[in-house]
Amino acid sequence: MELDEITISRAIVASQLEKFLDFMEMDVAVVGAGPSGLTAAALLAERGHRVGLIEKKLSVGGGMWGGGMMFPRIVVQEEARRLLDRFAIRYTPYREGYYVSSSVEAVSKLTAAACDAGVEFFTLFSVEDVMIHGDGRLSGLVLNWTPVEMAGLHIDPLTMGCRVAVDATGHDAVLARLVERKGGEIRVKGESFMWAHRAENEILSHTREIFPGLVACGMAANAIAGEHRMGPVFGGMLLSGERAAALADSLLRT
Amino acid sequence: MELDEITISRAIVASQLEKFLDFMEMDVAVVGAGPSGLTAAALLAERGHRVGLIEKKLSVGGGMWGGGMMFPRIVVQEEARRLLDRFAIRYTPYREGYYVSSSVEAVSKLTAAACDAGVEFFTLFSVEDVMIHGDGRLSGLVLNWTPVEMAGLHIDPLTMGCRVAVDATGHDAVLARLVERKGGEIRVKGESFMWAHRAENEILSHTREIFPGLVACGMAANAIAGEHRMGPVFGGMLLSGERAAALADSLLRT
Amino acid sequence: MELDEITISRAIVASQLEKFLDFMEMDVAVVGAGPSGLTAAALLAERGHRVGLIEKKLSVGGGMWGGGMMFPRIVVQEEARRLLDRFAIRYTPYREGYYVSSSVEAVSKLTAAACDAGVEFFTLFSVEDVMIHGDGRLSGLVLNWTPVEMAGLHIDPLTMGCRVAVDATGHDAVLARLVERKGGEIRVKGESFMWAHRAENEILSHTREIFPGLVACGMAANAIAGEHRMGPVFGGMLLSGERAAALADSLLRT
Amino acid sequence: MELDEITISRAIVASQLEKFLDFMEMDVAVVGAGPSGLTAAALLAERGHRVGLIEKKLSVGGGMWGGGMMFPRIVVQEEARRLLDRFAIRYTPYREGYYVSSSVEAVSKLTAAACDAGVEFFTLFSVEDVMIHGDGRLSGLVLNWTPVEMAGLHIDPLTMGCRVAVDATGHDAVLARLVERKGGEIRVKGESFMWAHRAENEILSHTREIFPGLVACGMAANAIAGEHRMGPVFGGMLLSGERAAALADSLLRT
Amino acid sequence: MELDEITISRAIVASQLEKFLDFMEMDVAVVGAGPSGLTAAALLAERGHRVGLIEKKLSVGGGMWGGGMMFPRIVVQEEARRLLDRFAIRYTPYREGYYVSSSVEAVSKLTAAACDAGVEFFTLFSVEDVMIHGDGRLSGLVLNWTPVEMAGLHIDPLTMGCRVAVDATGHDAVLARLVERKGGEIRVKGESFMWAHRAENEILSHTREIFPGLVACGMAANAIAGEHRMGPVFGGMLLSGERAAALADSLLRT
Amino acid sequence: MELDEITISRAIVASQLEKFLDFMEMDVAVVGAGPSGLTAAALLAERGHRVGLIEKKLSVGGGMWGGGMMFPRIVVQEEARRLLDRFAIRYTPYREGYYVSSSVEAVSKLTAAACDAGVEFFTLFSVEDVMIHGDGRLSGLVLNWTPVEMAGLHIDPLTMGCRVAVDATGHDAVLARLVERKGGEIRVKGESFMWAHRAENEILSHTREIFPGLVACGMAANAIAGEHRMGPVFGGMLLSGERAAALADSLLRT
Amino acid sequence: MELDEITISRAIVASQLEKFLDFMEMDVAVVGAGPSGLTAAALLAERGHRVGLIEKKLSVGGGMWGGGMMFPRIVVQEEARRLLDRFAIRYTPYREGYYVSSSVEAVSKLTAAACDAGVEFFTLFSVEDVMIHGDGRLSGLVLNWTPVEMAGLHIDPLTMGCRVAVDATGHDAVLARLVERKGGEIRVKGESFMWAHRAENEILSHTREIFPGLVACGMAANAIAGEHRMGPVFGGMLLSGERAAALADSLLRT
Amino acid sequence: MELDEITISRAIVASQLEKFLDFMEMDVAVVGAGPSGLTAAALLAERGHRVGLIEKKLSVGGGMWGGGMMFPRIVVQEEARRLLDRFAIRYTPYREGYYVSSSVEAVSKLTAAACDAGVEFFTLFSVEDVMIHGDGRLSGLVLNWTPVEMAGLHIDPLTMGCRVAVDATGHDAVLARLVERKGGEIRVKGESFMWAHRAENEILSHTREIFPGLVACGMAANAIAGEHRMGPVFGGMLLSGERAAALADSLLRT
Repeated sequence: MELDEITISRAIVASQLEKFLDFMEMDVAVVGAGPSGLTAAALLAERGHRVGLIEKKLSVGGGMWGGGMMFPRIVVQEEARRLLDRFAIRYTPYREGYYVSSSVEAVSKLTAAACDAGVEFFTLFSVEDVMIHGDGRLSGLVLNWTPVEMAGLHIDPLTMGCRVAVDATGHDAVLARLVERKGGEIRVKGESFMWAHRAENEILSHTREIFPGLVACGMAANAIAGEHRMGPVFGGMLLSGERAAALADSLLRT
Repeated sequence: MELDEITISRAIVASQLEKFLDFMEMDVAVVGAGPSGLTAAALLAERGHRVGLIEKKLSVGGGMWGGGMMFPRIVVQEEARRLLDRFAIRYTPYREGYYVSSSVEAVSKLTAAACDAGVEFFTLFSVEDVMIHGDGRLSGLVLNWTPVEMAGLHIDPLTMGCRVAVDATGHDAVLARLVERKGGEIRVKGESFMWAHRAENEILSHTREIFPGLVACGMAANAIAGEHRMGPVFGGMLLSGERAAALADSLLRT
Repeated sequence: MELDEITISRAIVASQLEKFLDFMEMDVAVVGAGPSGLTAAALLAERGHRVGLIEKKLSVGGGMWGGGMMFPRIVVQEEARRLLDRFAIRYTPYREGYYVSSSVEAVSKLTAAACDAGVEFFTLFSVEDVMIHGDGRLSGLVLNWTPVEMAGLHIDPLTMGCRVAVDATGHDAVLARLVERKGGEIRVKGESFMWAHRAENEILSHTREIFPGLVACGMAANAIAGEHRMGPVFGGMLLSGERAAALADSLLRT
Repeated sequence: MELDEITISRAIVASQLEKFLDFMEMDVAVVGAGPSGLTAAALLAERGHRVGLIEKKLSVGGGMWGGGMMFPRIVVQEEARRLLDRFAIRYTPYREGYYVSSSVEAVSKLTAAACDAGVEFFTLFSVEDVMIHGDGRLSGLVLNWTPVEMAGLHIDPLTMGCRVAVDATGHDAVLARLVERKGGEIRVKGESFMWAHRAENEILSHTREIFPGLVACGMAANAIAGEHRMGPVFGGMLLSGERAAALADSLLRT
Repeated sequence: MELDEITISRAIVASQLEKFLDFMEMDVAVVGAGPSGLTAAALLAERGHRVGLIEKKLSVGGGMWGGGMMFPRIVVQEEARRLLDRFAIRYTPYREGYYVSSSVEAVSKLTAAACDAGVEFFTLFSVEDVMIHGDGRLSGLVLNWTPVEMAGLHIDPLTMGCRVAVDATGHDAVLARLVERKGGEIRVKGESFMWAHRAENEILSHTREIFPGLVACGMAANAIAGEHRMGPVFGGMLLSGERAAALADSLLRT
Repeated sequence: MELDEITISRAIVASQLEKFLDFMEMDVAVVGAGPSGLTAAALLAERGHRVGLIEKKLSVGGGMWGGGMMFPRIVVQEEARRLLDRFAIRYTPYREGYYVSSSVEAVSKLTAAACDAGVEFFTLFSVEDVMIHGDGRLSGLVLNWTPVEMAGLHIDPLTMGCRVAVDATGHDAVLARLVERKGGEIRVKGESFMWAHRAENEILSHTREIFPGLVACGMAANAIAGEHRMGPVFGGMLLSGERAAALADSLLRT
Repeated sequence: MELDEITISRAIVASQLEKFLDFMEMDVAVVGAGPSGLTAAALLAERGHRVGLIEKKLSVGGGMWGGGMMFPRIVVQEEARRLLDRFAIRYTPYREGYYVSSSVEAVSKLTAAACDAGVEFFTLFSVEDVMIHGDGRLSGLVLNWTPVEMAGLHIDPLTMGCRVAVDATGHDAVLARLVERKGGEIRVKGESFMWAHRAENEILSHTREIFPGLVACGMAANAIAGEHRMGPVFGGMLLSGERAAALADSLLRT
Repeated sequence: MELDEITISRAIVASQLEKFLDFMEMDVAVVGAGPSGLTAAALLAERGHRVGLIEKKLSVGGGMWGGGMMFPRIVVQEEARRLLDRFAIRYTPYREGYYVSSSVEAVSKLTAAACDAGVEFFTLFSVEDVMIHGDGRLSGLVLNWTPVEMAGLHIDPLTMGCRVAVDATGHDAVLARLVERKGGEIRVKGESFMWAHRAENEILSHTREIFPGLVACGMAANAIAGEHRMGPVFGGMLLSGERAAALADSLLRT
């Protein structure tokens, strides 16, 4: 067979733009492809929803790649071990209740699971604004290419609609801050001191619908609530993603 | 259970530094975690060798994430379809002989396979130099943290030994150029025009041992040989990784 | 009528996608939307060819906007006055044989003419490489988004095919240098001293097919031939664009 | 005829500085050469006023070149179709009431119309301050070369007088913010969420004289009023430019 | 003896790893290796405490290297002369009560004394956050590699526990500001005017425990209290370090 | 006693400029305050010569601070242990013949020894050129403030005379390259591969007078000779410094 | 005569050192060598005071070099013509009451006059802080090399004492802002709109002692008072400098 | 009298425009306003020639402002003392034959003399190219605004004609290199070592017509000839400027 560049180019453009047009009205837009966002997206797609995962960088995985201080290992506690098992992430016990995994493996297995569940990825997409119409619900995201912003160009964005959005953008809590800045009833408090144990507890209680149509999860939830920081312990992130998926699922069913 | 930050930190540092010390004498050092490097590393580890994958960036996957022009799709031709199947990467046929996959899925599945096979990842490691002793063989890599270089700091490197190294660093052909610059018998010619079909053929014939102890694969092989460029078609990359694994395996057995 | 963001986004993506796929095999690819490129493109499209104009910047017009030293005026000599008339660019005589126009008007009128003739614009597209297959003719361009390069990202390009390409990239002579660097039989000599009168004469004689399938025009022609520079006098540029159109037209008819 | 560089240089300097001196007292200074500014300027000049268009960049067109997310298409709704016709911008219907045009064509046709109407362009001019004397009216603009600012040089500005100024500087609302910062009775609220339909309605009602001698139009009007954002839909911009022209015209007649 | 690179690498990694794990629970963490931090660390270690000195730069010595305006000399007044003697820093009298030393000698002698006393140095470590648990005491530092921050990477930190921390970070008062920003009962006022004489007196009275478990010393103490600046006179810095050591020592004994 | 800022400033300026004037004719100018430069300077000063140590950075110590890959440890082999003892640098044995020291301690102890021996430090001084008069000997250094160069200012240098200069500038071999670039009979070959054992041997044989009045030592010697690189093993550096001191001493005695 | 580099270097260092030590207690420190600062300094020195002119840049002249928008001309009105005459700056009348001079000539003549009057220049000196002791008067300046700041180095400043200081730093009003920031009773309001006529009147009434020992002049005076901006008309600047000289003179006599 | 901004702006633009047009055909274009360029220009203008001084920076004076290593003093030897006297630059003897002046005074007095002699300054003008027509003489300069280059804009230059040009651009030898790069018979060798005495002698012998119509002077002359560097000794520069003036004068008279 003679390979042809034009056909290759057409295959890529046509298949991706079809997806893009197709996902301009999706069920759930998860923003941020770190551990909690990947978990939420995977579990929502497993339940049959059409899920788009919006990530501003070229690669997914967020802050998990670097482990702690560039030592590419993460720790997961007992309560979340079942999620490691679910995503086939291998681990070794360190002390009772502490399990260590490779951060590279954790990213790749979570991502593979999201792919297998049917999540569609939109990488290099930055959220510039949100869309809120007369019903006061968040109903879409205003997006642009990240390199446009990096290059300092002034180019208009486009819009993708969604029934529910999940803010999994970490400390920045991007969606929450956009809603706050433009007058929505959200106050993003920023994180408090590092306290891993408390952080792990709080992250679940703050994983909730913070604005009509908008669920916060992962460290974005803690940042909005003004709660504690965690270090490179990721059990709470996975559990928060799981909880965000359950919340979004119930919103979609109503 | 009460989570403790100090224990978490200890778990991460101790487990990674143990790996680091352990891999200071490894069987194969694959440099560059793009598609051909991941493939080579996965297949070599599956054969039981101790394989370290050295990657200068924080994330693995190389140039595959962005597909073609930020449309995150890759094309694979008929000949390499069996490797997609082997790594459980899903695809849809575009025209006869052309298959389209998600680039995010391709990266995550190749990486997951490498993890499962036992490959150890050393991310944010830049190769500063190579080690060649009296026998004239490449016997180790001289490494530094990438952020040290990004921050413009002047800090000495460390060394990891290996019996075979694989240069999977793409167009840059980093290992080959280091050997060339310091007087080794290699000439890196740089790539010629884009010609996907020819590139796919050439990449296999140029995947070979270019210096005692050093195997070139992927686009590094084409760049060294002065051969053609490919676009976002990745079949040849996977096949080249497969062939590099076979070559390195036979070198290790002699 | 209720305006809907999703419909707007779909309209934009779908209509551009269709053009993009449609122009992956075009008659002529003119690279560089300065005065000579715009002229060549407009005249070729008027003759019925399918012409794509590839421009690396967000806006077209090249170096003409700034006139001389930011004084936004250009000068055109007697011989090229008929082209000003053809494109409805107004002018005032300065001395016998010298006509002064607004540089803003010149850019907008040339561009409007190209649009009316059916030229399709691909802005923010950088040419990374050229495609040359077994017949030794330039048969396509390897393209990427300019912001990808500006942002320092490593992403694969895509390819657009063309029967003839016109290098109207000014001093840089981008296509000619790509062919030269990779071993084609072209030598780009760079420009000589400023000598407006000689430059105006030479530019026409050097507007020619410099490689099978590749026509040079405008200052790229002079730069390749090692000829003189011009200042903000644009008659030669327009005439060179006109001549390049005639040459490309005859190539397309053979 | 022998072309002479010195004559060319003299022609350019003399003709532009004559215009500069001539426009130091103009009827209307439109600031910002995006779609609404170009429309306002063209229509005002058609009515016989002496109109200067001040643009900080080298090229005109503002954010319209890039369409939506670098897909160079714009959408215009039914209500504004007559303005496309007026400026000879071609379009194709997408769905009922939605028309798609090339963004390159839209910029060039609007600019050509402004040129033909007699608008004088002052590109690479940044507004540093405004001039307000004892009568409390904005009576002039304090200007500098944009490259002076880009190069971080400390050089005094010059002044151009005008009877009316139009702030068409987009989200930045440059003139309004200058008046606000120095104690004038203006509050620039910044834009609210994306809501294309509402934005299109609001933009007309907020196109008004916001300070004696200063008319706001385009997205500057919405930004001042704290109203909604639009995406790449440009009907409202053109209509706002048309309305600003009518307002400025009536101010000039009193 | 044949030197072996692998052994060298192992020696370095293994010995530092052991220290790092060992100091994850230390007695005192002194942050900032300028003159007051070095003094405090040296004197505390001489009393037998396990002291880690955390420094964000690659080299220690802080602002002392450059003397005054790059003239590498420092002045010490009569009251602190005994500390110069203690650390074997030579000096020459300038006028009565003023002694001049080489700044290079002062840095190296203080550092050598700290080394001899058993202080362990952690250079290129930035403090990202502090750890405060239920008892409301500062009980640890959240740390990252400085080059990670310089390179703009997003990587999680690790934690080192301490019974007492000393903020010797100079004007920035890094620890105090972290506690302040996250709601602790500290107000960092910033420094007042230069007044060397008053500054020297105040620095001692403000060297105190400013938060449970946190002692401020050196210019950080003055910055927190809103007191005066000093110039290149270092007696007060040494005396403040001495006093901080005494305070921390008594805290450790309770 | 009332501290007075003006007296402090006078003390600093007067004492340093006196030193500066005093050292404008010195016996030996050692350039580069890394391990070999510090050793050479200390030993030469101990023999009674007037030694200036010129260092382009604000701090001394060169690449030794960072140990290997930011692990602040250095290794010294058996042959050089006596120099550790001489400079009171403590160490622990790792394996037979390998000793590990703190890099911070090594820098501070070497520097303290140089200070005690009477070496005068000129930090933030960059060597711009060398002075070679009719006798063909290097007889002085042309110097400027490093920040002048960092700030991109164009300011003339000053000159310090010396009877002998020592190039201890590491890989850059600054003095050697200046002589080479301006026609002196030196060829700087650049370093070869990493080979710690060979490097340690070669460094001594290449520590020699490379040009009349110019002695090379440390890694500069190896770089000039085109010999091997070392990693963070510092025995050879200290021995090379010792040898350079002996060579310079004998040159000064002739 | 044989020129000797060492003697040249000694001559420069020794003569400047003497001046520097000599001016550590001066009568007046004028900060900012623009038109008003040069005028004030020249006139004060003519009256016999010891005047130091502190300038952060390498060259003096401030914003006067560039005239208006890089056209190197300045305008002076009738009232200040006598100062042009005094400093031998030539001019041509434009219209009644408006005189045009070369900006290059104006800078050089003012500077030459200041030199002849005995003003001592300290260029590349940045004011970091002010010195205010128990009597509540500004009694000195805390200074550093500008390149130290440009290079981002952390180096302590030195101090120069003065009986009176003149803030001639233009819009920035550097001294006034330092006093304001650290609690002095000054409010810097920033400039109002451009209104040349009013500005010229106000600048004289606001040239006054704004804090004990501190006189404001030139645009700093207007910026502090919240008054109007001027363009490239310099009469008021010269008159303000003249008035500041008179004020400082009377302060020095009390 | 009521000051009017518009009149001020007109005065500046009109008077500079007139000069600009007037000098498009000048007798001598001196490029570079350092000490030798200022001297040459002043002396040529004193002889009645129309002299334009082209300077790329905003201020004139070149490298003389900073004296030696930021100590703003220059040294002049006996032979050139008469030129100090001629330009009224004051000096103090240091040793026999060495005179020290203030660098600020030297710049301002040279510039004032040039102004008085009628030299016209064109600051912020960069030379992009030279104009050489059929007679093989340099007959003009191709110029652009320096900020255009600093801002990275692509804008065409303008041309000014001259009968003779003087290259006084220092080490860069800008005109000579432009002629060399484009094939003229000049070889710029670059400077040799610092040797003040020789440099002072050589500079006069190399001040000569290096290409028809082009005279080199100052350090440009030495750089072209490959001769020695000087430090902050300026006698040779002034003498070279004097000689260049004599040479240019005789060329103009033939």
